[in-house]
Amino acid sequence: MSDTDSLKPFFDPKGIAVIGASQDPTKLGYGLATNLHRSGYKGAVHFVNIKGGTLLGEPIYQSILDVPDPVDLAAVLIPAHFVIPTLRECGKRGIRAAIIGSGGFREIGPEGLALEQETLRVAREEGIRLIGPNCIGLLDTHLPLDTTFLPPPGPTPGDVAFLSHSGAICAAAIDWARGQGYGISRLISLGNQADVTETDLLAPVAADEHTHVIALYLEGIRSGRRFIEQARSVVASKPIIALKVGRFESGRRAAASHTGALAGEESAYNAAFRRAGVLRADTSEEMFDQARALAWCPLPGGERVAVLTNAGGPGVTAADALESRGLKMAALGAETTAELAEILPAAASLHNPIDMLASATPDQFAACLRVLLKDPGVDSVMVIFPTPPMHTAGAVAKALIPIIHQAEKPVVVSVMGERLIQEAVEHLRAARIPEYRFPERAAAALAALVQRVDLLKHAAEEPIRREDVNPDIVRSILERHENTGNLPAPEVSQILAAYGIASPHMGLAQNEDQAAALAEEIGLPVVLKIASADISHKSDVGGVLLNLADEKSVRGGYQRVIKEAQSAMPGADLAGVYVQEMVPPGQEVIIGAVRDPQFGPVVMFGSGGTEVEGLKDLAFGLAPLTEREITAMLQGTWAGQKLSGYRNLQPADIEAVKESLIRLAQLADDFPQLAEIEINPLQVFQEGQGSAAVDVRIRIDKDQGNSGS
Amino acid sequence: MSDTDSLKPFFDPKGIAVIGASQDPTKLGYGLATNLHRSGYKGAVHFVNIKGGTLLGEPIYQSILDVPDPVDLAAVLIPAHFVIPTLRECGKRGIRAAIIGSGGFREIGPEGLALEQETLRVAREEGIRLIGPNCIGLLDTHLPLDTTFLPPPGPTPGDVAFLSHSGAICAAAIDWARGQGYGISRLISLGNQADVTETDLLAPVAADEHTHVIALYLEGIRSGRRFIEQARSVVASKPIIALKVGRFESGRRAAASHTGALAGEESAYNAAFRRAGVLRADTSEEMFDQARALAWCPLPGGERVAVLTNAGGPGVTAADALESRGLKMAALGAETTAELAEILPAAASLHNPIDMLASATPDQFAACLRVLLKDPGVDSVMVIFPTPPMHTAGAVAKALIPIIHQAEKPVVVSVMGERLIQEAVEHLRAARIPEYRFPERAAAALAALVQRVDLLKHAAEEPIRREDVNPDIVRSILERHENTGNLPAPEVSQILAAYGIASPHMGLAQNEDQAAALAEEIGLPVVLKIASADISHKSDVGGVLLNLADEKSVRGGYQRVIKEAQSAMPGADLAGVYVQEMVPPGQEVIIGAVRDPQFGPVVMFGSGGTEVEGLKDLAFGLAPLTEREITAMLQGTWAGQKLSGYRNLQPADIEAVKESLIRLAQLADDFPQLAEIEINPLQVFQEGQGSAAVDVRIRIDKDQGNSGS
Repeated sequence: MSDTDSLKPFFDPKGIAVIGASQDPTKLGYGLATNLHRSGYKGAVHFVNIKGGTLLGEPIYQSILDVPDPVDLAAVLIPAHFVIPTLRECGKRGIRAAIIGSGGFREIGPEGLALEQETLRVAREEGIRLIGPNCIGLLDTHLPLDTTFLPPPGPTPGDVAFLSHSGAICAAAIDWARGQGYGISRLISLGNQADVTETDLLAPVAADEHTHVIALYLEGIRSGRRFIEQARSVVASKPIIALKVGRFESGRRAAASHTGALAGEESAYNAAFRRAGVLRADTSEEMFDQARALAWCPLPGGERVAVLTNAGGPGVTAADALESRGLKMAALGAETTAELAEILPAAASLHNPIDMLASATPDQFAACLRVLLKDPGVDSVMVIFPTPPMHTAGAVAKALIPIIHQAEKPVVVSVMGERLIQEAVEHLRAARIPEYRFPERAAAALAALVQRVDLLKHAAEEPIRREDVNPDIVRSILERHENTGNLPAPEVSQILAAYGIASPHMGLAQNEDQAAALAEEIGLPVVLKIASADISHKSDVGGVLLNLADEKSVRGGYQRVIKEAQSAMPGADLAGVYVQEMVPPGQEVIIGAVRDPQFGPVVMFGSGGTEVEGLKDLAFGLAPLTEREITAMLQGTWAGQKLSGYRNLQPADIEAVKESLIRLAQLADDFPQLAEIEINPLQVFQEGQGSAAVDVRIRIDKDQGNSGS
Repeated sequence: MSDTDSLKPFFDPKGIAVIGASQDPTKLGYGLATNLHRSGYKGAVHFVNIKGGTLLGEPIYQSILDVPDPVDLAAVLIPAHFVIPTLRECGKRGIRAAIIGSGGFREIGPEGLALEQETLRVAREEGIRLIGPNCIGLLDTHLPLDTTFLPPPGPTPGDVAFLSHSGAICAAAIDWARGQGYGISRLISLGNQADVTETDLLAPVAADEHTHVIALYLEGIRSGRRFIEQARSVVASKPIIALKVGRFESGRRAAASHTGALAGEESAYNAAFRRAGVLRADTSEEMFDQARALAWCPLPGGERVAVLTNAGGPGVTAADALESRGLKMAALGAETTAELAEILPAAASLHNPIDMLASATPDQFAACLRVLLKDPGVDSVMVIFPTPPMHTAGAVAKALIPIIHQAEKPVVVSVMGERLIQEAVEHLRAARIPEYRFPERAAAALAALVQRVDLLKHAAEEPIRREDVNPDIVRSILERHENTGNLPAPEVSQILAAYGIASPHMGLAQNEDQAAALAEEIGLPVVLKIASADISHKSDVGGVLLNLADEKSVRGGYQRVIKEAQSAMPGADLAGVYVQEMVPPGQEVIIGAVRDPQFGPVVMFGSGGTEVEGLKDLAFGLAPLTEREITAMLQGTWAGQKLSGYRNLQPADIEAVKESLIRLAQLADDFPQLAEIEINPLQVFQEGQGSAAVDVRIRIDKDQGNSGS
């Protein structure tokens, strides 16, 4: 049912039946009928309403069964309880696609949810794909086709496709687009997504030749891994930019480990978008601002921006905004500076940002832009102008447009003001050049282009998997254990060993003599740790002793650890004391993995120790990891940066950290039952000396083995 | 020269001479003359140009000396080299205020700077106050008065005053304000600020009854402490919001300590704005968005916001944006929910954000808003609406306006879309209700109101100073020392002791025997530290040994420390080894102070140790510190938060940390020669046990003693 062919009638219907078409102008069914009629749709349009009559000069059929050929799409706007019988009739009539605008389903509570599930079941029996229920409909400005009931005017034809989980935002998006001077190619309101989701529509919408960029308004994604797969294949040719809302509800998970507590929904979405190559917008306005630049501009070769302006202040503002978004102010070549000097008066500032002074003429704007664009050290240009005192902003825009059109580098424009600049704005919009009122918004648009280049560079990277792992060992350990709970330390060590993650030698002592014997076998000095499934944070209860260097200390230590644990947690079940190899000093990092309900295993890396949750020096990636994700996690944290050495801290074995991350991610990906894995610390030795998983916790939850993602 | 009376002619002139008035419409001198003429200014207007003639039906005098009474303000737009003789003539004519629009001064280089300094000298001799040179001029829409040469139309009269270091942004600001539907009370372009600065104008502009909020566009502040003083007294009655640009240029200071390296210009500006009670905007758009809300809305009682909308998606977006700005979604009272249920259909969501559904009528909007405003758990309301399908946005706006006007709580509105909502927007603007296209911008405006409340709450707080300090000791130590460099450890200890900051006992040993004797005197165990002015980071070179518990270890340690230092830094001048009391374990924080060139002593607090610059868990405040600043510094850092205890970390002596911060700040404030002071770590013991400045560095720079701030 998820093949793209079955979605074809939504975008290329031969005939559409409007079920619930109304003669009453105050009804949505009237709005839908008139929109479709007015849209210029070239196929057949049929109106259906049990009351019969005529509408817009056409007959209203009393049943869908009476509708003549061709008809392959139904737009349904009738009370919820009539939807199922209507779908039965649609099935009989041979219709295989329906847009259900009607409300009264999942959104009103359990009763509605039941009705929705039954509706889906019937649709599947009849072989009908559904968009909705509880949606605004869809439109295509190029086909053209409009099955929404939104008040006119519809959007201008354009190249931005908009897919939205919120219906209410669609009308605003259309109106905003019209006001901001860009057009929409397709708009789809997804409603409750009983059947078709945003993921299903990515490929069909990207296949539309008129769509240059896809903007998504998301409230959540149900099948995360499939979204990533679909998005990855789309973004290779067309950018996707998403606004994901609902952060305020996401809260924190109840979890036993740091990783579980910290790897929240937002971290998973960020990691997922990065893996999928999807740009994430911070605000609604930013999504549309950036979509325009993505649709219209060539991509830059790098992050070096030249700013050209007749106004010093806004030039400085632009430089601030560019740097805060990770872009760089281009250092201009000597030749460029010399040519600018020929064009501009002596008082002009020839350093980037280039301040041409208020006296700058349209010709000077054009000449300077030409010079900047040919500097190989300049990857993109931002032009900023408030209305010049002696010229119109429109004249400046007109002088710039042909140069921007010829350029192979992106140029964005900030025309400052509002009423006096309308002519300039209209010229630029007509020329499909992104323009913004403030330099900060223009900077955000350039940043999106640079981010797109970066995402494309890594788009083809596949997750890394190692061959020298032994999943059979893990499988047999998991088979021996309960459905949920923490695994005992020896099994934890075996699992790590099976995946090639080094951990210190250890054994369980149940009395002082066994502790002494194990210490001798392992080699002194040793570490003692309380062995108890009930104690999560051992060091908090005095349950860890380091660096015990002789038999006497080991024996005394055994008693002390037991005693401390008993007094700190009187009810705890104590299995004895682990005797562990004392590893040499090193940098301490935390690595962990947890299962996200949408996206499956998420891997965490950062500053380890007991203060993980306070310092929050953490980064996340989806398992299994790609090279790019590992690099991003290391570079994005202080823990990762200092592995290369810092002051008196020796450079540590970064390769060992990467290898541990790769293997941990692979383990988490292979066994969904491993609900949480946390290595804290992973002790990282000097370059070439490897690392050791000093303290490790694995919680299993076999129910997750079946849920998949 | 800095008294407010001398500035009076700028804002209430009896007569204005336009020097450089031109008959040529392509000249700025023509623009100025016509703007002033057209502005409706009620005093006398005189045109002056050496060429003579007539302009706008008035005579052009060939010299300022010929101009009849009354005249007390000159607006000067003539080539730079004529400015000085003109000022002489103005002086003779009894004019005491001049706006110099002419360019060709500081902004063109050293030659121009010299001319500017000479101009200022002449102005002072003549008793003339100057705005500019190199500025656009000033305007007052209520007086009215317009001495700018900007292309018409000028701004609508309103309540936002705008003071700008950038002239170029003024035209854009006027045009933007007109387009966004708010008015300007006064606009002043400050130019090169040879004489009058933004600081001088705060009080006179705030005294204007038409000005409700002051917006500042700042590229830098020259006399930081005076700015804070002036701003503090203004914000008690009228809010100030500032955009400070130039972050990208600020870079980092070359400095010997962490504090010096990390307490950058931006930290100082942030601390200064907080102390001054000035709101800081992130972007140009945000400054104007927030200025409107500050000018028009009552202040909220707290941070709890109710969101009312006919559109679920934007409601969620609003909640995200509010929480990301530190506001809270109000929990509605049971009565409120019950009343909403009476108004709204069953499918509506009665939890905040309240989704009334797309079918909401203007009356329902009004009724629900009324209910929300009377809930004592609601401090402010955001209303969001895209055009409803069955009503106009204008009708919704009209229904809301009377309720918003009656409310004693702030209500901001997000009307989503662009063309279809113009009627609604116009109604709201006319009613002086802040409206924004997107919920995120409305959230930022509410956040500014909450921040304003917080700033007002602490506005009266005075810096804390202790009486039991002994500046004489510090003074006599400083007198004995070179002009610049690090102070030796014993003097450092004496300085701290003089200000009541506890540090461990210590002494300098120049050989093994002295070390052993000192250790016995201080009490074992002890710490050894290399004594060398050349070695900044002692532990990096093996120059620190901890916990030496017997004489043998002390003797061996002495030799080892010397040897390690010699091998790590062969050229370093070694004075011996400090023997220091070994203090008990505790939480390690860093506290420090450094002199900012604009704002004087800045104090830093955060996570100590060697990784300060990597972790960047830091907060800054201006010395001397207020209670609020100390609280902000502790709450704003992980180091401060964990002082209250965290997992197995015992609560530490927070009072001792506060006391150390107060005293360190007072010390830095009292002695400008103390260029950098850094205590790292300040070891903080358990509650009631105090703290100890374990490792301290003080760098003096006597040149700073004279510069002041």
